[in-house]
Amino acid sequence: MTDIQILGITGIPEVTAGDDVGLLLVDAFGVDSFRADDVVVVTQKVVSKAEGRLVHDEDKDAAIAGESVRILRRTVGGMTISETKHGFVCANAGVDSSNVQEGHIALLPVDPDASARRIRSRIQHLTGVDVGVVISDTFGRAWRLGQTDVAIGVAGIDPFLDYRGSTDAQGRTLNATRIAIADELAGAAELAMGKVENVCAAVIRGAAIKRGRGRATELVRPPGEDFFR
Amino acid sequence: MTDIQILGITGIPEVTAGDDVGLLLVDAFGVDSFRADDVVVVTQKVVSKAEGRLVHDEDKDAAIAGESVRILRRTVGGMTISETKHGFVCANAGVDSSNVQEGHIALLPVDPDASARRIRSRIQHLTGVDVGVVISDTFGRAWRLGQTDVAIGVAGIDPFLDYRGSTDAQGRTLNATRIAIADELAGAAELAMGKVENVCAAVIRGAAIKRGRGRATELVRPPGEDFFR
Repeated sequence: MTDIQILGITGIPEVTAGDDVGLLLVDAFGVDSFRADDVVVVTQKVVSKAEGRLVHDEDKDAAIAGESVRILRRTVGGMTISETKHGFVCANAGVDSSNVQEGHIALLPVDPDASARRIRSRIQHLTGVDVGVVISDTFGRAWRLGQTDVAIGVAGIDPFLDYRGSTDAQGRTLNATRIAIADELAGAAELAMGKVENVCAAVIRGAAIKRGRGRATELVRPPGEDFFR
Repeated sequence: MTDIQILGITGIPEVTAGDDVGLLLVDAFGVDSFRADDVVVVTQKVVSKAEGRLVHDEDKDAAIAGESVRILRRTVGGMTISETKHGFVCANAGVDSSNVQEGHIALLPVDPDASARRIRSRIQHLTGVDVGVVISDTFGRAWRLGQTDVAIGVAGIDPFLDYRGSTDAQGRTLNATRIAIADELAGAAELAMGKVENVCAAVIRGAAIKRGRGRATELVRPPGEDFFR
């Protein structure tokens, strides 16, 4: 029986600019609690706060414009669907106010893959354990209602599980299947977080990830291959 | 500490038309093993096989056309992105050959929500436990590379966790957040399955789901509100 655990990390204090996210995670989860097959999923909001990526909310329109390289759609409700500098397509270029102090909004980290690498090496330094790290954010989707958490930063793992060329249980070649495992990890971690309780990180233990020097920007479908951009 | 488990169900035999999927799940997982907070995730392929939704692979083009109500795009690689009768937007209307016997392809269940309800009531009848059920399939996405598992059938749970109108840890109203929890459950279950090993179902234990009479078709963004259809 395959057995995967999703362990919500409680007890992380309110994060402010300059905080050491890796240290906060180690303090909250326990210095001896990490294992080598763990993937630590941290929400974008924590990372953005620690990196000082907050602006006043009266500057929201300018912030969205500044974070966007291209506007895809503007909704009647005043939401913008745009492509961020990282290549992500999401609402309001990832700028939002939930779980941010009154009067402020948070921008996405400048380089979430670099943020993930810093958190990973900090955890490794503090615990001696080489975990994978995913930074997650809550994105809407085309065609389907509701949002799911996806990976915007990755360190220490391949964001894909690539079955292309392998054979299925019938011995047939799986031609097209390449699972965006980093996105499934982000979504799975969300199950242990909720949006209201202040659980902003989770450890996923036992998933069949492939270790590697992956980046979340690999998950961006190149605009030239994207029929819906 | 929130603790969620994803338990892959092993030992399900090769499924053929007429098989009782609920019974196969109970036999494989154990009649006394289910708990009331479990969500049982079963892959579409198992359900389609049990419902006899296989056709000869030389009829693939006709099958895709028959399953589609509208073609969104045709790729140079010969893939069709279409809207199915259920409203799902996916590659080849969900018709594919992986994990299907040589010479055949599988179509999506006619009514996956009804399939999920049948499996749920069968498990309840056999075990006395009222679990949630999700039927999952592997879909590509706009804007992001790789596929993730999503819900195409749901029974016994609300497919959403709706935070609209609730307050976050800062006491601010979360305006837009409605998590597609059924899709996150499907993706999380995929972590315990893999595509190659013959693990075609998983139990997710301890997730903060809301019980209810939900349907996966609620996850379909109405075409009139969809900017990318």
